[in-house]
Amino acid sequence: MSAHLRVDQSPFHRLIGLEMVRAEDGTVEMRLPWRDELGRADGSDWFHGGVISALIDIAGDYAIASKLGRGVPTIDLRVDYLRPARRGDLRALARAVKVGRTVGVADVELRDANDAVVAIGRCAYSTVG
Amino acid sequence: MSAHLRVDQSPFHRLIGLEMVRAEDGTVEMRLPWRDELGRADGSDWFHGGVISALIDIAGDYAIASKLGRGVPTIDLRVDYLRPARRGDLRALARAVKVGRTVGVADVELRDANDAVVAIGRCAYSTVG
Amino acid sequence: MSAHLRVDQSPFHRLIGLEMVRAEDGTVEMRLPWRDELGRADGSDWFHGGVISALIDIAGDYAIASKLGRGVPTIDLRVDYLRPARRGDLRALARAVKVGRTVGVADVELRDANDAVVAIGRCAYSTVG
Amino acid sequence: MSAHLRVDQSPFHRLIGLEMVRAEDGTVEMRLPWRDELGRADGSDWFHGGVISALIDIAGDYAIASKLGRGVPTIDLRVDYLRPARRGDLRALARAVKVGRTVGVADVELRDANDAVVAIGRCAYSTVG
Repeated sequence: MSAHLRVDQSPFHRLIGLEMVRAEDGTVEMRLPWRDELGRADGSDWFHGGVISALIDIAGDYAIASKLGRGVPTIDLRVDYLRPARRGDLRALARAVKVGRTVGVADVELRDANDAVVAIGRCAYSTVG
Repeated sequence: MSAHLRVDQSPFHRLIGLEMVRAEDGTVEMRLPWRDELGRADGSDWFHGGVISALIDIAGDYAIASKLGRGVPTIDLRVDYLRPARRGDLRALARAVKVGRTVGVADVELRDANDAVVAIGRCAYSTVG
Repeated sequence: MSAHLRVDQSPFHRLIGLEMVRAEDGTVEMRLPWRDELGRADGSDWFHGGVISALIDIAGDYAIASKLGRGVPTIDLRVDYLRPARRGDLRALARAVKVGRTVGVADVELRDANDAVVAIGRCAYSTVG
Repeated sequence: MSAHLRVDQSPFHRLIGLEMVRAEDGTVEMRLPWRDELGRADGSDWFHGGVISALIDIAGDYAIASKLGRGVPTIDLRVDYLRPARRGDLRALARAVKVGRTVGVADVELRDANDAVVAIGRCAYSTVG
């Protein structure tokens, strides 16, 4: 994995505790361990939805980046929340669907510790140099 | 503003430092002051995109909640990034477009400290009791 | 209105009976009169949802085109259906939100004969020459 | 395939010439043969984008309908255009991703006559009785 694909150089990534598992040729896996600070409400066992959308945006970006060797600006982001994401490790699995000359598209699946798909995302990125 | 619409009971809201400005009858304004922890990269002056999508989801939810008197689960979220969001206060302005028996839709605008619109969002929420 | 912005040179536009009302400087109004062929089901008084999404895509495209003087490829399209669209004239009101060097974004509102908003759309277009 | 899943009872489906290939247990395949009336511009070999979004909305709806035995109202629709869709048969392959008590989500892939994926769609439907 190239230096371009390190996730620890972003203060926000460190704030939420994001970990890179694997990034190669358009496919990315990331992990986000549970922390109480990421919860929806005090005493809740559920991740906040904002954590989920952030994770989808980041994982999709790295899927395109793993093809291009550089990060790309997000054009737009779409997230479908399928079920609440319970405490435990969240896993993001992202895949580059298209890497064109002007636009890249990535699909992302988020799975909870029971391997249930809790959210799916689709993002468009600008690939113009 | 009712107790239902406090934003400080969520650990994630406190983590990013979210502040409620106003919530009434389908219209919400929130503020997110700059913190280095919310930056895109070390030394960067830009908010991380994940912060922006989180803020849009939250503000839209409160716009619907301000009509119903309770929070609502997000069905899906869409964010268009129009320009980078520079350090300074971010303001989220959300408006309930529809509050139906099964679905609510909210539009959200994010403005930076120069009052430039940096991102727009549209979210669908489940309003089924 | 320039020749670039005529709508009668597309066979599909003629098939559904699309009419241009006005296009200038990022703002477009189009009209789609009711025809039985555009109905959801036999004997129904409602426009088919596919007609609505098509109209949103087209109106958004012309909003960007009215700024650039040429048509632009759609990157992606998002439509929120707010209420059924009853027989009568449908009006599409589109507005360019952003016309950047690589991406344009347009917002579209669809109103039925009673001036009720039946659907809203947001579309991203590639503006790369 | 049940009578609920016939596609020839909609005037708009007949207008564009939509054909059902298969619908069972959350999976749907439809076919749309080329007609000159579906073209983007006079003399063009490309399907109009409005035809593509319509086809995605319809196929996704039938994927959910094939689970529930009845049609469902679309909440929202999102389409990513990956490449132009050349004249020839278009095939829509739709799959129910979630069929919940209030919301259903479907993913749709559109393939042209060369089996290239020309567009992908994701749609949310209201499943409330």
